[in-house]
Amino acid sequence: MQKENLFVIKIGGNIIDDENRLAAFVESFAALKGKKILVHGGGKLATKLAADLHVPQQMIEGRRITDAETLKIITMVYAGLINKSIVAALQKHGANAVGLSGADGDLIRSAKRTNANIDYGFVGDVKKVNGHFLSGLLNSNMTVVVAPVTHDGEGLLLNTNADTIAQEIASEMSGDYAVNLVYSFEKRGVLTDINNEDSVIPLLTLSLYQQYKQEEKIFAGMIPKLDNAFAAIASGVNKVTIGKAEELEALTEGRTGTILTHE
Amino acid sequence: MQKENLFVIKIGGNIIDDENRLAAFVESFAALKGKKILVHGGGKLATKLAADLHVPQQMIEGRRITDAETLKIITMVYAGLINKSIVAALQKHGANAVGLSGADGDLIRSAKRTNANIDYGFVGDVKKVNGHFLSGLLNSNMTVVVAPVTHDGEGLLLNTNADTIAQEIASEMSGDYAVNLVYSFEKRGVLTDINNEDSVIPLLTLSLYQQYKQEEKIFAGMIPKLDNAFAAIASGVNKVTIGKAEELEALTEGRTGTILTHE
Repeated sequence: MQKENLFVIKIGGNIIDDENRLAAFVESFAALKGKKILVHGGGKLATKLAADLHVPQQMIEGRRITDAETLKIITMVYAGLINKSIVAALQKHGANAVGLSGADGDLIRSAKRTNANIDYGFVGDVKKVNGHFLSGLLNSNMTVVVAPVTHDGEGLLLNTNADTIAQEIASEMSGDYAVNLVYSFEKRGVLTDINNEDSVIPLLTLSLYQQYKQEEKIFAGMIPKLDNAFAAIASGVNKVTIGKAEELEALTEGRTGTILTHE
Repeated sequence: MQKENLFVIKIGGNIIDDENRLAAFVESFAALKGKKILVHGGGKLATKLAADLHVPQQMIEGRRITDAETLKIITMVYAGLINKSIVAALQKHGANAVGLSGADGDLIRSAKRTNANIDYGFVGDVKKVNGHFLSGLLNSNMTVVVAPVTHDGEGLLLNTNADTIAQEIASEMSGDYAVNLVYSFEKRGVLTDINNEDSVIPLLTLSLYQQYKQEEKIFAGMIPKLDNAFAAIASGVNKVTIGKAEELEALTEGRTGTILTHE
């Protein structure tokens, strides 16, 4: 039997921070036919709120440390403001959305990251996605909107990378669905020249990716996203596409952006 | 056929603001047997955050006006921080909780309050509760945790009174369930003397309530809660109890607090 299609779409980057661009994206997401899950990042709103509240943001080796106060801010901004604003906008456009953190319905269980050298604070690495809960909601014709906050099952909320959450959800759901994982952001795809939007790589195979990575032809900031994307394909996800949030329909149809394959 | 029991429990007042008291309450709530829904208020956290962010809080006739910035704060604090903290704590205690705003799954549709004399801002009056969605979650052995933020279906989130939400949910669910509505807070029940915890009225009939209200024997702050409670009974809710959050088990069993009846 052919598996039913499922879109798992990550929206991130600058789109979240721009009210008009986010509104346009949400409308195009609502218009997508079929079952769909949206995973959103946090944008710069949490950083701004931390600054407004004079909560110092500690960075170690380019990574933000999530201390207790920062975790509260992240929970407020990601699981509260951004998540509920997206859900309300989807309802307006006729998509019956439900917004969840990883704690809700035990959706995403994670483990607090331990590292011998760096204490990242309240950061969680995904251990388990509750696919059964997601399937139940999708089968009730609901659209799920996931905030990048997870929990450890012991009462702790944990800050978790949204790209990874999208990949973990896509991988978990690929047992029952033909999953189309889309990373949408402000760029037109994976570029060989970060300053040239016309340098999109239309098809990125694993071997080409490894070659480009070695030759440092791919912007360093894209590497974790691409590693996640190839991990998703390896785990059974049908298709991964990376591209511009403003071109969502074309992106889901493979008419734009970068398509990743294992070949 | 006898209806199945359902607890709809409102937690409010000072309990939300006190980490230790909230933790103890959540543990006792998790231990309650059977189907249950928790509705939480916001406490003073939102007021504190508004002060920290220098967002002036306008009061008219003792009521807070919810302007656009205040609505953002409320969404962050109620639907984000408080809701997710309670959900994570319930997961720790073995209750598979899912935290929702009124926008999620179109749970609570409201209308922006219009008033010829006062503009309350982004405040919503409940129009419709999605009982079907709640029943589906309850039948999947989930516990629902509701934040006092609703939506108008046109993309607007709205600040909504948590006591009213608890009453509206209890009324909607009373068609299918024998609903036990519990308003739990920092007092031992409805008092005839606000300064004397031993002045609890054990049984408050509608006629006694009307008499006490006329004689101004009941603290003014309790009147909206009691009006809500009697509205719930009138709409078919089985039982309404008001009392101390720390005595939740006794309260649900009718061994403490004030029991309201229409007789």
